[in-house]
Amino acid sequence: MKRYRNGEIWDFENVSRDGVEVILGLDGGTTSTVCICMPVMPFTLNIPDPLPVLARAIAGCSNHNSVGETAARETLEEVMAEALSKSGSNRSSVRAVCLAVSGVNHPTDQQRILDWLRDIFPSHVKLFVQNDAVAALASGTMGKLHGCVLIAGTGTISYGFTEDGRDARAAGAGPILGDWGSGYGIAAQALTAIVKANDGRGPQTMLTSSILSTLDLSSPDELIGWTYADPSWARIAALVPVVVSCAEAGDPVANKILLLSVQELAESVKAVVQRLGLSGEDGKNYFPLVMVGGVLQANKSWDIGREVINCISKDYPGVHPIRPKVEPAMGAALLAWRFLMKESEDKLKR
Amino acid sequence: MKRYRNGEIWDFENVSRDGVEVILGLDGGTTSTVCICMPVMPFTLNIPDPLPVLARAIAGCSNHNSVGETAARETLEEVMAEALSKSGSNRSSVRAVCLAVSGVNHPTDQQRILDWLRDIFPSHVKLFVQNDAVAALASGTMGKLHGCVLIAGTGTISYGFTEDGRDARAAGAGPILGDWGSGYGIAAQALTAIVKANDGRGPQTMLTSSILSTLDLSSPDELIGWTYADPSWARIAALVPVVVSCAEAGDPVANKILLLSVQELAESVKAVVQRLGLSGEDGKNYFPLVMVGGVLQANKSWDIGREVINCISKDYPGVHPIRPKVEPAMGAALLAWRFLMKESEDKLKR
Repeated sequence: MKRYRNGEIWDFENVSRDGVEVILGLDGGTTSTVCICMPVMPFTLNIPDPLPVLARAIAGCSNHNSVGETAARETLEEVMAEALSKSGSNRSSVRAVCLAVSGVNHPTDQQRILDWLRDIFPSHVKLFVQNDAVAALASGTMGKLHGCVLIAGTGTISYGFTEDGRDARAAGAGPILGDWGSGYGIAAQALTAIVKANDGRGPQTMLTSSILSTLDLSSPDELIGWTYADPSWARIAALVPVVVSCAEAGDPVANKILLLSVQELAESVKAVVQRLGLSGEDGKNYFPLVMVGGVLQANKSWDIGREVINCISKDYPGVHPIRPKVEPAMGAALLAWRFLMKESEDKLKR
Repeated sequence: MKRYRNGEIWDFENVSRDGVEVILGLDGGTTSTVCICMPVMPFTLNIPDPLPVLARAIAGCSNHNSVGETAARETLEEVMAEALSKSGSNRSSVRAVCLAVSGVNHPTDQQRILDWLRDIFPSHVKLFVQNDAVAALASGTMGKLHGCVLIAGTGTISYGFTEDGRDARAAGAGPILGDWGSGYGIAAQALTAIVKANDGRGPQTMLTSSILSTLDLSSPDELIGWTYADPSWARIAALVPVVVSCAEAGDPVANKILLLSVQELAESVKAVVQRLGLSGEDGKNYFPLVMVGGVLQANKSWDIGREVINCISKDYPGVHPIRPKVEPAMGAALLAWRFLMKESEDKLKR
């Protein structure tokens, strides 16, 4: 953390030239942080495919709740400098930065990060700070803040926006606070089912042999030690594919766990759609639902994502599922680009 | 931990005299460790009331999973030395030691602690090492290892013994592995209900205002920060009385959570009774059920312990609930006393 105390992080700017105008899009998560440097595309509704990318840089965790404010900030500053340096640009070429980072839940979080970004960039640079779920939504809608995103990986959250800028979220409160549809939730329920089968509180299940052999344990009693030896949620969530395999093989306990997960995930989306009125007055309007994360990836026969859509479309037939083709950092960059385009349109109208 | 490297812990023995023969009973938990020094009572079935106690000493955590082996051992050695010193006895007066400590789950745990106790006491001293649930059972049965104990505090476990020495346990696997009947489980479900009411996934509940005001928080969004700021299970479990108050005031969500807890707790007892055949072939035999822990303490109108008994007695009408009048450390001492009595009877028979 001492390396860049005196701004050496930006030393490359002494030799780089002003290039094309660029946008930085960042997706900062608990495991890694990605920064995309994109040229400012013409303000038309036709977005080129593939999207132009000047550079991509990657770094570690930038969630301030996990690593602390100072380390998170340095990681973000480093990754932005690297993307600019790789693209042959410098800070005076930047038109906008969109930083989408996990752990941004309150306007106060947002303002603190904005203040700090303000110190790095020249005053004409547009700055946007969002929760990382917003970048995931934008990666499916090519930068439009409209519709809902469902993320289900180790954790889960639903986040939605109306076209007039209202937003709502559901779930995303972590495992203690009931995110049972998440990868962690699915796996924790599978481990619980093994304990219950072992002590006589629940039916026998294929999960016992499948999970014990995956973890190289010889008895269910050893699960307690395994579970509490390392409190990482991702380590437990990594068992999801085993649960899916057992469900595909017909195990009723594994099937019940996945069905509960489907119900929980669908309910979190429906709560957002309902609160925002995304499906219109008759409940039938079209709205995009961006689906992201390992739990929602298609499996051979048991496809959690497909079941979630089936469940939602019973109440909201206008739901339009989207599996993003670009990464969330690109979503963040597109978000910033659309803000610039909107601003330019507004100027022309005046 | 360096203080007693050279056995100074036992220095008091240089000035204390051999007194009456004594038994040490220890209850070692995650929050505190209690040691009782009891004289060896005559081997008759009439147990005096009140029980004779020569000394009682108290110390901190002695769960080796929480504080490590060295610190746990030193705490246990200190508390035994203090109890002996207070009672004017020394190690040569000790006939038996029963150490009931949390975190003893495998025969290997038991053997390791036995080996270490062996180094402290003269070779004629009888040594017993048990899980702390066993001391809780013995505190209700006055030292007899027969029946079932249900502990429901921050965590929960059911543990039972048949008269011929078979044992079984259910639950006790911690919050990740589904101990939903525990104080932690009840409170975590209440917090989840608040999050769900707030984001539109669940019904409104009185729990929101009651718990937020108890925690001095102004909005449900702040619960996430509060929950993950400190991972202590006891801190969350401390909210149980608020949930009980809301249920007593008629809140349907709080009532549902308590009913689920009752069902989970009853199921863990029934699993043990079933596996051990404690209620006999027709399911109607008498068996003691010792009930311990804050969750099972009687409340004004919503009495979780009473509901658990009602639920169990539908299947097992011979269940006989006991709320212990002595503490678990005394249960441990009584356990050791009964072992000595049994041994003396066996000798007479030969």
